[in-house]
Amino acid sequence: MYRNKLLFKITDSFVTGVMTMQNFEYYTPTKIVFGKQTEQQVGELIKEQGCQKVLIHYGGNSAKASGLLDRVKASLDNAGIAYTELGGVVANPLLSLVYQGIELCKKEQVDFILAVGGGSVIDSAKAIAYGVAEPDKDVWELYDRKRQATACLPVATILTLAAAGSEMSESSVITKEEGDIKRGYSNNLSRPVFSILNPELTMTLPKYQTASGNVDILMHTMERYFTPHDTMEITDGIAESLLKTVMKNAQILAKDPQNYEARAEIMWSGSLSHNGLTNCGGGNGDWATHMLEHELSGMFGVTHGAGLAAVWGHWARYVYQALLPRFERFALRVMGVAPAENAEQTALKGIEAMENFFRSIDMPTNLSELGVNATAEQIAEMAKKCAIASKGCIGAAKPLYEQDMAAIYTAAQNA
Amino acid sequence: MYRNKLLFKITDSFVTGVMTMQNFEYYTPTKIVFGKQTEQQVGELIKEQGCQKVLIHYGGNSAKASGLLDRVKASLDNAGIAYTELGGVVANPLLSLVYQGIELCKKEQVDFILAVGGGSVIDSAKAIAYGVAEPDKDVWELYDRKRQATACLPVATILTLAAAGSEMSESSVITKEEGDIKRGYSNNLSRPVFSILNPELTMTLPKYQTASGNVDILMHTMERYFTPHDTMEITDGIAESLLKTVMKNAQILAKDPQNYEARAEIMWSGSLSHNGLTNCGGGNGDWATHMLEHELSGMFGVTHGAGLAAVWGHWARYVYQALLPRFERFALRVMGVAPAENAEQTALKGIEAMENFFRSIDMPTNLSELGVNATAEQIAEMAKKCAIASKGCIGAAKPLYEQDMAAIYTAAQNA
Repeated sequence: MYRNKLLFKITDSFVTGVMTMQNFEYYTPTKIVFGKQTEQQVGELIKEQGCQKVLIHYGGNSAKASGLLDRVKASLDNAGIAYTELGGVVANPLLSLVYQGIELCKKEQVDFILAVGGGSVIDSAKAIAYGVAEPDKDVWELYDRKRQATACLPVATILTLAAAGSEMSESSVITKEEGDIKRGYSNNLSRPVFSILNPELTMTLPKYQTASGNVDILMHTMERYFTPHDTMEITDGIAESLLKTVMKNAQILAKDPQNYEARAEIMWSGSLSHNGLTNCGGGNGDWATHMLEHELSGMFGVTHGAGLAAVWGHWARYVYQALLPRFERFALRVMGVAPAENAEQTALKGIEAMENFFRSIDMPTNLSELGVNATAEQIAEMAKKCAIASKGCIGAAKPLYEQDMAAIYTAAQNA
Repeated sequence: MYRNKLLFKITDSFVTGVMTMQNFEYYTPTKIVFGKQTEQQVGELIKEQGCQKVLIHYGGNSAKASGLLDRVKASLDNAGIAYTELGGVVANPLLSLVYQGIELCKKEQVDFILAVGGGSVIDSAKAIAYGVAEPDKDVWELYDRKRQATACLPVATILTLAAAGSEMSESSVITKEEGDIKRGYSNNLSRPVFSILNPELTMTLPKYQTASGNVDILMHTMERYFTPHDTMEITDGIAESLLKTVMKNAQILAKDPQNYEARAEIMWSGSLSHNGLTNCGGGNGDWATHMLEHELSGMFGVTHGAGLAAVWGHWARYVYQALLPRFERFALRVMGVAPAENAEQTALKGIEAMENFFRSIDMPTNLSELGVNATAEQIAEMAKKCAIASKGCIGAAKPLYEQDMAAIYTAAQNA
């Protein structure tokens, strides 16, 4: 009976096309240069931009040790482009290094920033770019929601980790050491002018980082998918293709990290998952899981993607009844579960299937597995900080207030 | 037996992910402003671009009669933007009007072109924009493949017909009256800076134009889908979602032309089908059907999309054996046919299913239904012109020479 109803309902909404949808803007000016050895084009690509001096911004030693940094410098030398450099970006990039980068750029008259690394490096580069373009203002005011940016230096990227999607997105996340405050800021001005995506550069990434990146990519689509608005079929179709492609290739990489094709599918899916394509017509998405995770990694320094995996299922079980048809569709279309007794059971099976997927790539599904043992006080503090950062409320699937945030953290800790 | 083999094969290629893929560039700088009443933003959007004077370029009387042109002018007036105007673009836009537009822009010192219309108007605007930016050179040299453009005025669009995808693409097609020569030219310089997509503006479009547009949209994905290269799963997934969404909503519009949601799905799918998203990793696509149709509409003035529908099946039956796994996948994944006795039969059933779809929206599947009765001499002339335009050979699925082109036209005429 329920199965018949379900079939009718889905078929019906597909045939009649009856739904309302949101107006939207879609803006992805970043030129993508994708494939093997593409980093060799960086000098020529920057030359086209007509800048005076470049800051090469990067993280730890891996960019040096792998020879990537030398290849980048050789390409810039060949194109006759002057540069200076600043390394040292850490996961959850720090405001102090951003300030240091801004001072360096002012001193060296840098007018173009090249990020060589993953999302942290790119985010740090975006923050420096904002800071240099408005030299008399404090860049933290942007992240602290005190003002909007009116200018930004051009940023380009050579991506070495598929995860954050920052290589094509308008967003960046910075952590202020004082008070461990992690905040995001979004503005189209910071979308990179070009991004070089060579999947070969991600081949040697450790298994845990790879899997965490893959969860982050999935979550960028899922945060947009679980929207209370009616959506566009084409957007849903693209989102579901992205989720299925990423899950399949994440499992391939869990066994065969050197698989170029799987690295490529993940890398391109990572950019498409966070460039705005997957919320066309469906509003702005939910983002509660991201907000909850920000406080977790702010307090415990956990890897972002792993933190998302540890929290998501507990968020989902807390809110799914408020968005039942959507969770049901997710279960059937994305996770491929068979319809259960009723919509609620189907939805729950879909949540469970996603958690099983996380386990299959050795990702945590609760805080203990994440290595976090938060006390009741720490949970209360995270919830309080999250509420302050969001001016009281997060989420769109179901609005969540401070006590809801604490309840989800508690469920994730006790699971 | 065949079914089991088939199932194994598909599953296998999905599980192992073994495939090679092409490097690619993806560049879609056009800002999309999508939804109801969005044309009212045009003044502010142009103001952001900081130009001196705008050419409003349009087609026949419908833009005037509908009041759209007045609303556009009011928006420009409100934003304090000076403009001049040039109407008269016809389907298969003519070089003579392009020259006229170039002269007008020089005289009036126009530095920004706003196309209000469908693909023909946008293509004409792009050609004018090339011509004004390089005032000492003949713009036809670009379309005649004599040189590459080095500059182009900024172009923006308000789209009134979902079909050509020109609102987000780098391509344009112009017809030179002398000799009825229809030629395309592609260059990233001509990608619009912004495009306003309001599905309401397409609601009153006649049924035949609507259906032709829908075929054109499908063909932009299909030309890329039938590639001899291995492809990316995510690109295939997006392409298949686009094809299924467009077919479903085209059938809705055939019965209910005023359906806003179906108009919206089609309009956004039209842009995504031709902005480069659907050939990421798979090479440049086939494009033989488009080349064959160009000569048809050059000689007989038929509507582009209807011409594509009339030719496609005959092209497909001529080449499918050279690309059997791809046609088989198309049959199973896109057209949803049940596997037949063998791959060949499955592929043929897929081609037939697409022709049945064309019939379901009253589109022709041969030249007679298109209203064309070409003599043997006319067929020979079209094949000759097509061969000259393509320097001898078209297609990637299977290279087609002059005698192949004639054979496909003949099959389409005799069917």
